[in-house]
Amino acid sequence: MGSLKGRDLLKLSDLSPDEVMELLEIAAQLKSGKLNPRITVNGHPPVLGLLFYKASTRTRVSFSTAMYHLGGQVLDLPLNATQVSRGEPIEDTARVLDRYLDILAIRTFEQSDLDTFAQEMQIPVINALTDLEHPCQVLADLQTIQETFSTLSGLTLTYVGDGNNVAHSLMLGCALVGMNVRIATPIDYRPLPEIVQLTEKIANGKSEVLLTDDPIAAAKDSHVLYTDVWASMGQEDLAESRIPIFQPYQVNSELMSYADKDAIVLHCLPAHRGEEITEDVIEGSQSKVWDQAENRMHAQKALMASLLGAV
Amino acid sequence: MGSLKGRDLLKLSDLSPDEVMELLEIAAQLKSGKLNPRITVNGHPPVLGLLFYKASTRTRVSFSTAMYHLGGQVLDLPLNATQVSRGEPIEDTARVLDRYLDILAIRTFEQSDLDTFAQEMQIPVINALTDLEHPCQVLADLQTIQETFSTLSGLTLTYVGDGNNVAHSLMLGCALVGMNVRIATPIDYRPLPEIVQLTEKIANGKSEVLLTDDPIAAAKDSHVLYTDVWASMGQEDLAESRIPIFQPYQVNSELMSYADKDAIVLHCLPAHRGEEITEDVIEGSQSKVWDQAENRMHAQKALMASLLGAV
Amino acid sequence: MGSLKGRDLLKLSDLSPDEVMELLEIAAQLKSGKLNPRITVNGHPPVLGLLFYKASTRTRVSFSTAMYHLGGQVLDLPLNATQVSRGEPIEDTARVLDRYLDILAIRTFEQSDLDTFAQEMQIPVINALTDLEHPCQVLADLQTIQETFSTLSGLTLTYVGDGNNVAHSLMLGCALVGMNVRIATPIDYRPLPEIVQLTEKIANGKSEVLLTDDPIAAAKDSHVLYTDVWASMGQEDLAESRIPIFQPYQVNSELMSYADKDAIVLHCLPAHRGEEITEDVIEGSQSKVWDQAENRMHAQKALMASLLGAV
Repeated sequence: MGSLKGRDLLKLSDLSPDEVMELLEIAAQLKSGKLNPRITVNGHPPVLGLLFYKASTRTRVSFSTAMYHLGGQVLDLPLNATQVSRGEPIEDTARVLDRYLDILAIRTFEQSDLDTFAQEMQIPVINALTDLEHPCQVLADLQTIQETFSTLSGLTLTYVGDGNNVAHSLMLGCALVGMNVRIATPIDYRPLPEIVQLTEKIANGKSEVLLTDDPIAAAKDSHVLYTDVWASMGQEDLAESRIPIFQPYQVNSELMSYADKDAIVLHCLPAHRGEEITEDVIEGSQSKVWDQAENRMHAQKALMASLLGAV
Repeated sequence: MGSLKGRDLLKLSDLSPDEVMELLEIAAQLKSGKLNPRITVNGHPPVLGLLFYKASTRTRVSFSTAMYHLGGQVLDLPLNATQVSRGEPIEDTARVLDRYLDILAIRTFEQSDLDTFAQEMQIPVINALTDLEHPCQVLADLQTIQETFSTLSGLTLTYVGDGNNVAHSLMLGCALVGMNVRIATPIDYRPLPEIVQLTEKIANGKSEVLLTDDPIAAAKDSHVLYTDVWASMGQEDLAESRIPIFQPYQVNSELMSYADKDAIVLHCLPAHRGEEITEDVIEGSQSKVWDQAENRMHAQKALMASLLGAV
Repeated sequence: MGSLKGRDLLKLSDLSPDEVMELLEIAAQLKSGKLNPRITVNGHPPVLGLLFYKASTRTRVSFSTAMYHLGGQVLDLPLNATQVSRGEPIEDTARVLDRYLDILAIRTFEQSDLDTFAQEMQIPVINALTDLEHPCQVLADLQTIQETFSTLSGLTLTYVGDGNNVAHSLMLGCALVGMNVRIATPIDYRPLPEIVQLTEKIANGKSEVLLTDDPIAAAKDSHVLYTDVWASMGQEDLAESRIPIFQPYQVNSELMSYADKDAIVLHCLPAHRGEEITEDVIEGSQSKVWDQAENRMHAQKALMASLLGAV
């Protein structure tokens, strides 16, 4: 196995199918305790920077605990505490942080800001969420699916709701591991065409890539039903107006009835019960959302260990 | 000795008399250096979460250094940085944090919020201050009294001022270790009846439990005079109006003259000199407030080590 | 070699010439990897407090990574999260932190606040920036100059711009290591007379100490050209009005042409391109500003290791 030493993870398609499968294998071994590395960089604990343009619990806590478990340290770099907010060019901030940190995870809006950091820095840079992609979430999602079904290739995942960054990374992730992916959204909320094209290129006809506005057709015989909030952070003012548009895309027991009888339900949280998902479904026996949340930690630990050349 | 492995500390009366004495013994050994454990959980450094609904220096720094000394890590979870503030049910936040953290200390207002976290979580949950109780403070207070007098049972502690959360935990703590406790407050600022009853039940007639509005009678021959601010954080607007009501309850040299000649003075800080305590008393030779502040670290270290099963 | 164990660094002139040279030697060995100490205090990881009255990236990140590399822990103590902001006397805060922390770096405005902390505390206290001085920056600057020229004594440093805290520490630092120092500022922006006198006393006629309003004369044959922003944090509203006053003091290619042909350019960042320094100069081959930024970490690591008695 080759590690990802010194590379970045800016979008999920930076990884080859083999690399995704290898990360999932490492994540599983970390979770089971079979693998438990303590990492050093030049003889000292690795220092992870978390540069967050918007607040986060799950992302901050899962990255931090992952790095702590690896024996490293974490520095929060909220935007308002950095020179970025006082007009220093992003390039200068990047070059200085590159001298201090060993690895950096960034949660920003524009993918291009992430790219700028990566270009200016030698250390590995990780996309911890942009408007375009959420690759770490999807690594955790795939880990959750794999530990449920003991396989990935050939399974079908159906995402219903808003064609957002999570949907984008799910499409790419499914194509990379040979899963069929169906995205059911209102017509005006489809994923970006560039992501659809990239997904189809990766799938290369070997697995299904379906966009539809019919959630029932999409859910049919699916092994994984997945949804996310209808309005992301920063879009709260749109939430009310979106409800009637998205109501048919709610994950509820009726939609579940169309899926495979062993299907699982995933949600990247926070969940709005009664909106995109019903209470009985998220709390039901098919819900794997708490395992999925936990797997953020394991998947990101695998990723960081690999980018630092330790596995 | 049995550890408190896997348990919570939500209120001081969660502990038996033997368990309190054992924690104090561990705290003393940690302070002297006789005990200096380095803890791991599943092979990695334990991660303490600090979920604080209101800011704090002493509590945050004493918990953090305690965990750092034990070889662990700390994650600050201020309310405004968590999903709690964006309407996620407290149960969901609790269940997710339970997957990442090894132990959690919560500083909140409502005891019921603390209870909800504890119910949803497998990991040990610690009350780091609620409107009802402040058990960690009182463990440090008892440690301070014990290291001064080499005993606890049979001593008398007099608390003068507001019958608040600190007074509550002091009452329970004194009863648990066989100390007499006298609470001198204005009539309208007495401790809650439920706490008085619980204290009397624990004391079981073997030690004194006295509520009074006469600070001089309460101070008579007492070994420990204790006070706290007259208006807690968030009540600053009430501070001015409370001064005439609480003036007779000031800890000053006159009140000290009624206490035992070897009496010590405690204050859980921050202190408002000239209000609840005078400059000459807090800076005088009978003041143990700086040792008391230091003991927050030792007592909490003992508590966390025990809850994690390491001592 | 004698360590600085238990001492403070409140101003650069707290150090003797030998002590400065020794710190620079340690910093160089830390950077090269020849020295890589893992420090403990009473058997536990040292805990560094960062008490910052104003936000900072470079200072916070460089101190934090330095301490993490040494095996220690870091506690951020932003002012708004401390009792200081709620009216607790600074002395009380200092005495309590003294019981928890092993070393404290303070970034404040008034030098006298820093002095108060140092007086109340047993642990080493470090000036991480005051209105009067910025000694840690200048240790990093001297390290950068020494690694470029393999010597310090006899070299000439020219600072052009505002006679601020960085200028103050540069003057003292140059005098301590036997470098000539020239400060070119508008007449009304000269360094404080007390610093000038102290510098002249340290230089003792063996090295040059020049104040001038002529940047070209100052730059002549100089080995180091140094500048800083024209308006510091908190003075942003003055920035516009200062531009015409400071324009002649811009570090640009013309000014560079007067310096020694091997001269280097330093800037303590953040830089405002087109104001105090031009794009071509800061990005040019003579610019050492990124090495200089990195050296904050090494110099502060050397300082903390020495104050903790570990080197």
